[in-house]
Amino acid sequence: MNSSSKLIEEAVDQVSSLPGIGRKTALRLVLDLLKRKPEEVGRFANSLTNLREHIQYCGVCHNLSDAPKCQICSNPNRDGATVCVVQDIRDVMAIEGTGQYMGKYHVLGGIISPMDGVGPSDLNIDSLMQRVSSEHIQEIILALNATMEGETTSFYLFKKLSAAQVKVSVIARGVAVGGELEYTDEITLGRSILLRTPYESSLKR
Amino acid sequence: MNSSSKLIEEAVDQVSSLPGIGRKTALRLVLDLLKRKPEEVGRFANSLTNLREHIQYCGVCHNLSDAPKCQICSNPNRDGATVCVVQDIRDVMAIEGTGQYMGKYHVLGGIISPMDGVGPSDLNIDSLMQRVSSEHIQEIILALNATMEGETTSFYLFKKLSAAQVKVSVIARGVAVGGELEYTDEITLGRSILLRTPYESSLKR
Repeated sequence: MNSSSKLIEEAVDQVSSLPGIGRKTALRLVLDLLKRKPEEVGRFANSLTNLREHIQYCGVCHNLSDAPKCQICSNPNRDGATVCVVQDIRDVMAIEGTGQYMGKYHVLGGIISPMDGVGPSDLNIDSLMQRVSSEHIQEIILALNATMEGETTSFYLFKKLSAAQVKVSVIARGVAVGGELEYTDEITLGRSILLRTPYESSLKR
Repeated sequence: MNSSSKLIEEAVDQVSSLPGIGRKTALRLVLDLLKRKPEEVGRFANSLTNLREHIQYCGVCHNLSDAPKCQICSNPNRDGATVCVVQDIRDVMAIEGTGQYMGKYHVLGGIISPMDGVGPSDLNIDSLMQRVSSEHIQEIILALNATMEGETTSFYLFKKLSAAQVKVSVIARGVAVGGELEYTDEITLGRSILLRTPYESSLKR
């Protein structure tokens, strides 16, 4: 692609460095920005530099935060006895979106994945163990992806936590709500039969 | 989506204002930027503000340019006797990408589209007529999209240019190279039979 303008070329280079954005899409986005007022483009660019410069990791749960302690950790209405362990901030946002959880979180910052060179020491596991020993935590909920790496990490955490006086649970796996059995994969369906729950508990929501 | 961080919220708002980018994609892009060094994010943001502040429209052909006159218009090796009329800079880039055209361009900045409230006076048509009368132009090539609006604009330009001493041509429409007749739409196939060309001319490339 040959745009006769170094400025466009450079902006397209930068935008296409984002994941999943090719050069044609980048050009479309850049031309859209060009139609806006300079102040608007300034606000756009500032929101990104501001974010990168001022964002912090919560000192307690490692969630991304505007302050040294995140909104969830500093909220006195949230139940400090339950801690939900997740991979990253997107999972915090997904669980918060359900409105079903009022405990706190612990963000691992990744999952154990030898293929990508990520081991337990690269994750926020030590600080989780410290929280378990210093805070009054009664239950740890493992809410990691149901992938090979997620299951491995869950098992690793379960083993590590088994010494501590804390209940360890894992989010339910099974047929998705609204899902049809015919189209559910065999492993999920098999597990959901093995791990069947009393009918009364399905009436709660 | 509820991210517990105003900074993230604002960056996601801005990024999701781009066309075709939803809030989930915006969050993915923003988290990717967060993994980079602050200087890199600064460069990213600067490339956009720089572009918006310093970009100009070429005074001759209305192409986007870094200087008052664009690289193509100021290139003495390009044939000033042929001017290709296109809708916007993306079409200039597409035609430049073929490496088959050595003439100059004229960027209309849109096409006539009464549905979108775009009339002839909103486009760079007057300056095209001026170029035709002041420059030594021998041929105008209309290279607009083969849509209803594109055809309307081509016809309007053809009528306007018919008074001037200039040859007006239009890029060939027909079965795409590599295309199968069976899957070509009827109008294209019908036209490509009506507008058949001598076999010898298909041997050139």
